[in-house]
Amino acid sequence: MFSHPNPKKVLVIGGGDGGVLREVVKHESVEEAVLCDIDEAVIRLSKKYLPGMSVGFQHPNVKVHIGDGFKFLEDKKDTFDVIITDSSDPEGPAESLFKKPYFELLHGALREGGVMTTQGSENPWLHLKLIAELKKSCGEVFPVAEYGWTTIPTYPAGQIGFMMCCKDSSRNVMKPLRSLSGQEEDKLFRYYSKQVHEAAFVLPKFAEKALR
Amino acid sequence: MFSHPNPKKVLVIGGGDGGVLREVVKHESVEEAVLCDIDEAVIRLSKKYLPGMSVGFQHPNVKVHIGDGFKFLEDKKDTFDVIITDSSDPEGPAESLFKKPYFELLHGALREGGVMTTQGSENPWLHLKLIAELKKSCGEVFPVAEYGWTTIPTYPAGQIGFMMCCKDSSRNVMKPLRSLSGQEEDKLFRYYSKQVHEAAFVLPKFAEKALR
Repeated sequence: MFSHPNPKKVLVIGGGDGGVLREVVKHESVEEAVLCDIDEAVIRLSKKYLPGMSVGFQHPNVKVHIGDGFKFLEDKKDTFDVIITDSSDPEGPAESLFKKPYFELLHGALREGGVMTTQGSENPWLHLKLIAELKKSCGEVFPVAEYGWTTIPTYPAGQIGFMMCCKDSSRNVMKPLRSLSGQEEDKLFRYYSKQVHEAAFVLPKFAEKALR
Repeated sequence: MFSHPNPKKVLVIGGGDGGVLREVVKHESVEEAVLCDIDEAVIRLSKKYLPGMSVGFQHPNVKVHIGDGFKFLEDKKDTFDVIITDSSDPEGPAESLFKKPYFELLHGALREGGVMTTQGSENPWLHLKLIAELKKSCGEVFPVAEYGWTTIPTYPAGQIGFMMCCKDSSRNVMKPLRSLSGQEEDKLFRYYSKQVHEAAFVLPKFAEKALR
């Protein structure tokens, strides 16, 4: 979100727990946040059992669509400023969400200067070869394709990576384009800060070399 | 090591596997690297079974002392430029290596401008209260006391933290004081880079707030 100068229309693919939505609607520029998840049960159960997570669904600018992300994207052209894919891992049922045809759909659905990010891009300690292939696929579709990571203690090796891509070749997605005061940051976020944004793209030397 | 401008004499407390020594002697300024481990069996078995780790013991500038780190430090005054404690966790047999009397011994054993770092400082996801206490103890002894972290996939939550402290109140240990060319870095290190050094001190917002 902070790698886009003014995100108005945002799409979340997956993310049925509502946590990504909760973060998306913290950005005042957002006029519409659409969530498309294939499984209505995730949303229903999150609303029932995870109130802190599903609070994102209560925002007036949120719309929910139950269905396949692939099909949803097919007729969406130049529509979104930011698309966040919050799926399961590249190995298993979500495999197609980590392949070039999907990235081409995302590219088409994004407006000029649009940014997409895809969670679930594994981590450099365990899946460096897979990450290199993923970065290559993204780089064939988007002029900017960077790999970053974040700490999640319950994930294998305590990390998860993500690709961050942009349609605008001049954009540096590794630096936030907007910034809040320290006080606003403290109020809004439990993990993110502008320093965290930049540090997320600093990789251990072995990974940096492999992805260079 | 990169937080000191010219480390000549270096002490490792613990670290009997030799891995820390291996990294210490990569710095050409080092004239003497002393390792003090309480357990000779660690060194012996590392030499036998972990050749890639124990290679550090082969360097001509390395000296080994088997004994208690506390006792070893008692009569060492103004002796070392860098002291690295590579012990087990703050809870258990190494508990005393995370308390103020130990930090006072380290302070005394360091030369002017000396730097000490202590591995095993847990991680913010699991031990934030303990880290806050540790940082406080260090800050009572050293004018500079910063908390950083690194990823280690086999550790709980995939991370381990460390305190980094300096006797010189004007020193910023969070930035490397010396830097190598990208080519030299590529050759010498599999994890470290100057960007990794700086990013190691960027904490998630919740941890940054708790330790502020």
